Amino acid sequence: MQNFEYCNKTKIIFGKGTENQVGSETAKYAKKVLLHHSGGSTVRSGLIDRVKESLKGAGVEWVELTGVLPNPRLSLVYKGIEIVRKEKIELILAVGGGSAIDSSKAIAVGAVNDGDVWEFYDRKKSADKALPVGTIVTIPAAGSESSISSVITNEAGPWKRGINFQCIRPAFSIMNPELTYTLPPYQTACGITDMMAHIMERYFTKEPNVELTDELCEGALRTIIRNARKIFSGGERDYAARAEIMWAGALAHNGLLDTGRIGDWASHALDHELSALFDLAHGAGLAILFPAWIKYNIKENTPRLARFAAKVWGVDGAFYDYEQAALEGVFRMENFFRSIGMPVRFKDANIDPARIGEMAKRAVHFGPVGNYRKIDEQAAEAIYRLAAE
Amino acid sequence: MQNFEYCNKTKIIFGKGTENQVGSETAKYAKKVLLHHSGGSTVRSGLIDRVKESLKGAGVEWVELTGVLPNPRLSLVYKGIEIVRKEKIELILAVGGGSAIDSSKAIAVGAVNDGDVWEFYDRKKSADKALPVGTIVTIPAAGSESSISSVITNEAGPWKRGINFQCIRPAFSIMNPELTYTLPPYQTACGITDMMAHIMERYFTKEPNVELTDELCEGALRTIIRNARKIFSGGERDYAARAEIMWAGALAHNGLLDTGRIGDWASHALDHELSALFDLAHGAGLAILFPAWIKYNIKENTPRLARFAAKVWGVDGAFYDYEQAALEGVFRMENFFRSIGMPVRFKDANIDPARIGEMAKRAVHFGPVGNYRKIDEQAAEAIYRLAAE
Repeated sequence: MQNFEYCNKTKIIFGKGTENQVGSETAKYAKKVLLHHSGGSTVRSGLIDRVKESLKGAGVEWVELTGVLPNPRLSLVYKGIEIVRKEKIELILAVGGGSAIDSSKAIAVGAVNDGDVWEFYDRKKSADKALPVGTIVTIPAAGSESSISSVITNEAGPWKRGINFQCIRPAFSIMNPELTYTLPPYQTACGITDMMAHIMERYFTKEPNVELTDELCEGALRTIIRNARKIFSGGERDYAARAEIMWAGALAHNGLLDTGRIGDWASHALDHELSALFDLAHGAGLAILFPAWIKYNIKENTPRLARFAAKVWGVDGAFYDYEQAALEGVFRMENFFRSIGMPVRFKDANIDPARIGEMAKRAVHFGPVGNYRKIDEQAAEAIYRLAAE
Repeated sequence: MQNFEYCNKTKIIFGKGTENQVGSETAKYAKKVLLHHSGGSTVRSGLIDRVKESLKGAGVEWVELTGVLPNPRLSLVYKGIEIVRKEKIELILAVGGGSAIDSSKAIAVGAVNDGDVWEFYDRKKSADKALPVGTIVTIPAAGSESSISSVITNEAGPWKRGINFQCIRPAFSIMNPELTYTLPPYQTACGITDMMAHIMERYFTKEPNVELTDELCEGALRTIIRNARKIFSGGERDYAARAEIMWAGALAHNGLLDTGRIGDWASHALDHELSALFDLAHGAGLAILFPAWIKYNIKENTPRLARFAAKVWGVDGAFYDYEQAALEGVFRMENFFRSIGMPVRFKDANIDPARIGEMAKRAVHFGPVGNYRKIDEQAAEAIYRLAAE
């Protein structure tokens, strides 16, 4: 087990009706906030009206910035930063999923640091201060509600790049599973895949002796799989199932599940290129790439892949052949993704394999990716090819 | 699943040699600290010398208060409060196990609130401010290093009572598993039992639909059991095993494992009387009382007890009879406790059953205890009698 530091200051306010606490919670940090969201379903559902009422009741003023899209855009971040500076805003309140939250984090860090905010994403510099961010989560997926991460797409490339700074971890996050009842199934499934990928990226490590973390990861994955099945078997409005998924999504990415080791993250890097070039939802890209990544690594620490198959997918642990067990796990994982409507091959999502070479080159822009096994340009191309089969 | 709030601000600094970071970490909060510890093994091991060197290197002054005992005493807390006020101390630095940390928390809360600090423990009032506490953990057990709890013994009674305030959660905790290599086996075993009890108290709930929390609890318990066996099979200096136990001890009591439900805590309440009257180590008392508590509740939500037996103790889940499975689980739990040298009956610890009536009366001093099933005086007596069999 490696030495580690762990501290997560995000206050989670979880449960039915909790969005009505947003005013009183926000008032602890700010008199004026940037209310940042899509302007679509957040408004149609009546959520934004309730949020405004709560803010008003607590004497908090707001300026609204709508238009957040999936794979949130840098141009809107620039606009947010300008508003925050001009209006002397003290907190960014994100209402939505990972896109709204990541966009809010980018604004929060850009507003109080000099220079172009993209330089943080382009790894030219690091930040240790940001405005506080509060969130009301409507899509359990990215885990951004208690993470140190933010991923933004720069349309100029397009480049999709991420930062990981302690200072952008939200001050508070409000999570009401009822708000997810009306999510389109595709978004629910993308979210489920994304949070599973966050756990799997942490699980696939070469660091031995992280048993507690392994047990927590495996338990969280089993919980997600079981409850996903409930939701996709007529349980769209099953509070318990929605709650398990929502809470698991936050734990998946809050840092707890990689204590004592470093994770892999190659699949995420490979997906960034897929979703940047084809504007594919992040979860859908991961459903395609994760099985391919395991297949590519099948000779690499095979017992680990077999354990994953046994503990998470119920493959018989007494399989004599680790490789056979690991491949059976991949097979079950693909079937699961298919069962919730996710693509598992390029053709399922109309991805053109002709651009594999370009994606592979872009994926290793900052050098080889991944830690379980270093993925260079050639390896990236091989994984994309497995996904295109 | 019930609504919940969760926020844990303790910064965990975990791993080899981390005690040498105490100076730089402390300096973020204070120029002068109360260095609070037993004065026994902490000194003999050379740890306190290293701590002082680190504090000195960071320009932090200290006043030392030694003499902390297991079941930490109120009289020493009073002394600490006096020193802190007189010396204008800004942080309490606990070096030791749950006793040193709980005593430090009592001093931290007593020093900045008017009146007698015992009134907090006697449930006469509540606190929302305290001095910051930092810890260097030497005994993984109480989980006090990132919990909101403190338990103090008032010699006048003797009464053993606890508080749970957010304001006493430590600012930082330094955890080096190497510091636990030389723990006497009895202390290691008491600690293991205590952390298991912290998880079981949270696990035994009547709240349905807390699957993720259940999975995390079961995984943590399995990890503790496996690694305890390693330590007690010649692995005293097995870093990985010691690290798993140490990290599990913190997670067991940091609040994560009861998100979405309330736990039971009857066994803890019953043990407080046992350890107050007989000065028995907390872990040893829990090893005696938990099996008795399950036996007493065998007809109460039996499938839950059977699940515990199956998931944690490996009892065949296909048992037709839930009660039989649950009792098999208790049997295995008792055997496990015995295997690490814990008592499982009154006679193993020289507890006089003649005082059962008195203990039962004292245990319900503030009314019935427990949530899984309300335990009144009569029920408490019945559980003590099962433990005395």
